[in-house]
Order: sequence, then structure tokens, then C-alpha cells
Amino acid sequence: MNLRSGAILVLSGPSGAGKSSLISKITDQIGPTYFSISTTTRPMREGEVDGVHYHFVSIEEFKREIDQEMFLEYAVVHGNYYGTSLSPVKQALKEGKLVIFDIDVQGHDAVKNRLSDITTSVFITTPTLEELKHRLHNRSTDSDEVIAGRIDMAKREVQRISEYDFLVVNDKLEAAADILVLIAKAARMKIPTLQINEFVQSWEAS
Amino acid sequence: MNLRSGAILVLSGPSGAGKSSLISKITDQIGPTYFSISTTTRPMREGEVDGVHYHFVSIEEFKREIDQEMFLEYAVVHGNYYGTSLSPVKQALKEGKLVIFDIDVQGHDAVKNRLSDITTSVFITTPTLEELKHRLHNRSTDSDEVIAGRIDMAKREVQRISEYDFLVVNDKLEAAADILVLIAKAARMKIPTLQINEFVQSWEAS
Repeated sequence: MNLRSGAILVLSGPSGAGKSSLISKITDQIGPTYFSISTTTRPMREGEVDGVHYHFVSIEEFKREIDQEMFLEYAVVHGNYYGTSLSPVKQALKEGKLVIFDIDVQGHDAVKNRLSDITTSVFITTPTLEELKHRLHNRSTDSDEVIAGRIDMAKREVQRISEYDFLVVNDKLEAAADILVLIAKAARMKIPTLQINEFVQSWEAS
Repeated sequence: MNLRSGAILVLSGPSGAGKSSLISKITDQIGPTYFSISTTTRPMREGEVDGVHYHFVSIEEFKREIDQEMFLEYAVVHGNYYGTSLSPVKQALKEGKLVIFDIDVQGHDAVKNRLSDITTSVFITTPTLEELKHRLHNRSTDSDEVIAGRIDMAKREVQRISEYDFLVVNDKLEAAADILVLIAKAARMKIPTLQINEFVQSWEAS
């Protein structure tokens, strides 16, 4: 008896905590996944690819999609719009995939409110703020101003860790990846309330 | 960095759904566990062993323990008291064990209210009501009256499946056990809110 369709895994945490490395380390161990790509109005940066890092759209396009209720969640950060389109997520869920979101605390809030029945969330962070600063400076992709912004945001976000189902401290990549694999495998076992209700009805009728 | 102490896995579901078989099938795959033994005032049945199936106590003893707040949860069912003593659970958590509860929907409610941060819950049932009846009659340990009572209770309990984190339909024992192993392994990764708060404080101070 298979009541499962897809499920959602939300990953949040400061830029520099190692989310991307963790995700690429675990994807071949957790079955079929769909990695949700956000839509944004911010300008494309050097090295970024449209449709890979983000879907880059104009503000007009973004607002049109808001009006048509095409977003699962969206937010404005530093004057730029960021959002998650609903339709590819629905399609991936229908295909039984684990949909992975790399979104911030606000985004998690929105997803949890709309799809709590199939959502598992994980906050990923460095063991210390010091270590986060160290990693951000070392990757040297960002200006000092951007790094300062990321650190401010990280300080605000860690305050809300307890809203998440799990906390993974990315101290050693291997160990953190092992924990994330366990969480992702269980996340896939969530069943939509709709299916549960249908199951209960058919159970009683038998 | 180890923030984890123990965690809790609540298993509920109708008598006859195969909880005991599932538990004994998975215990050697999920690391150190402590199986919580309920305390009851109901008479011991043939084949039952004090301290294995239940802690059997008198009503006076039970009421004394209530007064001393020694129960994590307790309830009265058909005039008999059933409860979960707090102290062995605390001890097992301190030892980093996964504490497994085989309790009803009421008990789950109580545990979730008091220890939600480290609790994962699973409702286990047969694929159909018909199948449950079949299994209850086949094991022939219960009188028709007891079986009828179990079925009534099952019908009430399935209405509350969506209060649980997971539903496992015990259609094929092997498959259900595999799913339960995944859930139990992830359940162990829950971190107490207290530890999270301490972590956030030390993170910021670094």
C-alpha cells in the first residue's frame, strides 16, 4: 500500500554554513530529488546561470506571477524579490520526489504554513559565529559589506532555530552529511493529510 | 559537537496492528533504546510478567505516584489506571537512548505536550479494518468482548492519525519495518530546546 507521494525538505542557515556542499554530498544517497530553484528580480552575478542558480526575471514579470498566485512563497530582501514558483514543486511532488528548498527563515515559515503535513525542516549552521566569519572571508567571493550583511542576517536567523524540526551543526562535513541523510530519508516518509483522510475513510469502510 | 542527548519515539495504533512484532524486528538496527514499560492497576493476565509487560501496582500505590508527580502521563481506561513513570525515562534520555513508547492516542497527546522538542510519533495500523478483525480473531488470545472493545477503540483512534508525525501501514512486515527504521534513526537526531538555546548563546558569544 503506497500512500506516499513526494515530500519536502527545507534547508535553511547562513550563507557560508556549507549547505551547498552538504546537498551535493548527499543527493546520490537519498533517492529521487528535485532541487527547487528560486525566482528573483535581482541582477545576475558573474558566474551565475539563469535556470541553475536562479530563474532571473524582471520586476514586472515577478509581480504578474504574484497576481496569478504562482508563488508558494515570496519575499522582498534589500529591494529585490525572491520567490518559489508553485508549479514545478507540485509536479515534482506528483512524481514522488523529495523537493529540497534552500530558503531563509521567512521562506520556511511560509512553506510550513502551507504544506506542514509533508515538510521536514533543518537548520544548518557552523559550530560558531567565529567559524562562519572565517569561512565567509576565506571564500572571498563577497565584498566586506556583503559579508557584514550575511553575518547580521545569520545572527538574526539563529534566534529562530527552534522553529525547525532539526538542527545540524556542520562541524565536520562527513558527520553532518550522515545526519542529513538520515533526516532526508525519513522526510520522504511523510504522508499528505489528504491521503491520510482518504486512507481513514477506506479503512473504516472495509 | 554533540548537542544530542536521548530522544523519544511514540508508537501508537490498534492492538493487532503488529507493533510488538515491528519493534522486535527493528531494535537491533536503530542503536541503543529503552523500551518504556507502563505501570498499571489492572490485574495481571496469564502469561504476563511483572516488569516486562507492565509494572503491576495497587490502586493505592498508583494514586500515591500521581500525588508525587511521578508520571509523565496517565489515564484511566475501563476503570483501570495506566501510566508512564517519569524517572526511568529521564535516566534513559540522559544515557542518550531512544526511548520507545507503546501508548495510545491520549498518551501521545500528553507526551507531545510535555516533550515535543524531542518526540517523533508514528501511528501503526493494518491496511484495513477487515484485516485488523482478522488478526485479532486469529491470535485468539482475547474474548469476543475484548476484541469488540479493541475494534471500537481502533475506529476512534484512526480518526486522529493526522496528529502523528508519521503513518506506517503494516501491510508487509518487512516493508513496514524498513520504514520504521528510517523514522527511528532520524528521531534520534532531535535536539532538546534547552540544548538549542545554549548552543545559540554560545554561538553568538564566539
